[in-house]
Amino acid sequence: MREPRIILGIDPGTNLMGWAVLSVEKKIVKPLEIGVLELNKIKDPYLKLQRIFEEVCGLVANYQPQELAIEAPFYGKNVQSMLKLGRAQGVAIAAALVHKMAVYEYAPRKVKLAITGRGAASKEQVATMLHKTLVMTNVPVKWDATDALAVAVCHYYQTQFPMQENPLSCKSWESFLAQHPERRG
Amino acid sequence: MREPRIILGIDPGTNLMGWAVLSVEKKIVKPLEIGVLELNKIKDPYLKLQRIFEEVCGLVANYQPQELAIEAPFYGKNVQSMLKLGRAQGVAIAAALVHKMAVYEYAPRKVKLAITGRGAASKEQVATMLHKTLVMTNVPVKWDATDALAVAVCHYYQTQFPMQENPLSCKSWESFLAQHPERRG
Repeated sequence: MREPRIILGIDPGTNLMGWAVLSVEKKIVKPLEIGVLELNKIKDPYLKLQRIFEEVCGLVANYQPQELAIEAPFYGKNVQSMLKLGRAQGVAIAAALVHKMAVYEYAPRKVKLAITGRGAASKEQVATMLHKTLVMTNVPVKWDATDALAVAVCHYYQTQFPMQENPLSCKSWESFLAQHPERRG
Repeated sequence: MREPRIILGIDPGTNLMGWAVLSVEKKIVKPLEIGVLELNKIKDPYLKLQRIFEEVCGLVANYQPQELAIEAPFYGKNVQSMLKLGRAQGVAIAAALVHKMAVYEYAPRKVKLAITGRGAASKEQVATMLHKTLVMTNVPVKWDATDALAVAVCHYYQTQFPMQENPLSCKSWESFLAQHPERRG
């Protein structure tokens, strides 16, 4: 895989779209920039979709990511909100496909599990773990972009360590040894 | 408005996407081409979205429509199917927005009401009315594209006759006269 590997993480919503650009080089995982696109002040639903499209295209032009990792809830409160969410997701995915990027999606539970070892982890726990494990210099903390950063990191873990969520997900020393027989004494 | 006015009608779905290109010139409403994009054989969901995007972009390049009219159900069987439908809609809308087209959407009931005067009309009734009212020479009948053609025509009616659905929607001679006082004897 080309290095640095650039992964764009997106948490699309109809009011806020979090995004994060992740760089991986020689196993050093480093967010290059994270941000939030505020959509709640835009009343026109098409203008919202257009802004999402433009934002994703702009990020692709700036950072040339090869992969898009998208946080994609599969269940929602009601059909109306799922239709809106689907549109926002569809627009972000379309922007990636136009630029020949590969698209991967992860359910929120899967992302939390990959980052913290717990599918039911809180946003704060996810953020804390990200700050512990990533080189976060020069990247201002933006809470609404945490999920986007998390899904990008989750995707990196998934492709790098496909057998396990992340080292933390090994529930016991025995299961760790089962996955890493070379560590058996 | 520029003449001929070209309206692209789309009925997006996850298995089939119907489309119709409508030309309006001096009140002559004429479908230029109608078609169906078959998606049911494509297993990869992103490839489906990519095909929708490419198809819409191709139609825009070929016919240079200024407006997209999209059939958009607001209710569905379940949240899963609405999310998928939302994505398909989002991709089609994104393709239009990229090309600076104006986007309009209509609920299926509204489309049927505009074409036949009855919101609960059958697909056959809609198709029959379209064949009666439009100049359909050289356009092969494609049943799955009926909804796409209908939404394009619905959009034309809406913008041309904003006060009424279509002449057929006048339930009585009195209501017709109320809308057309000049016809009162």
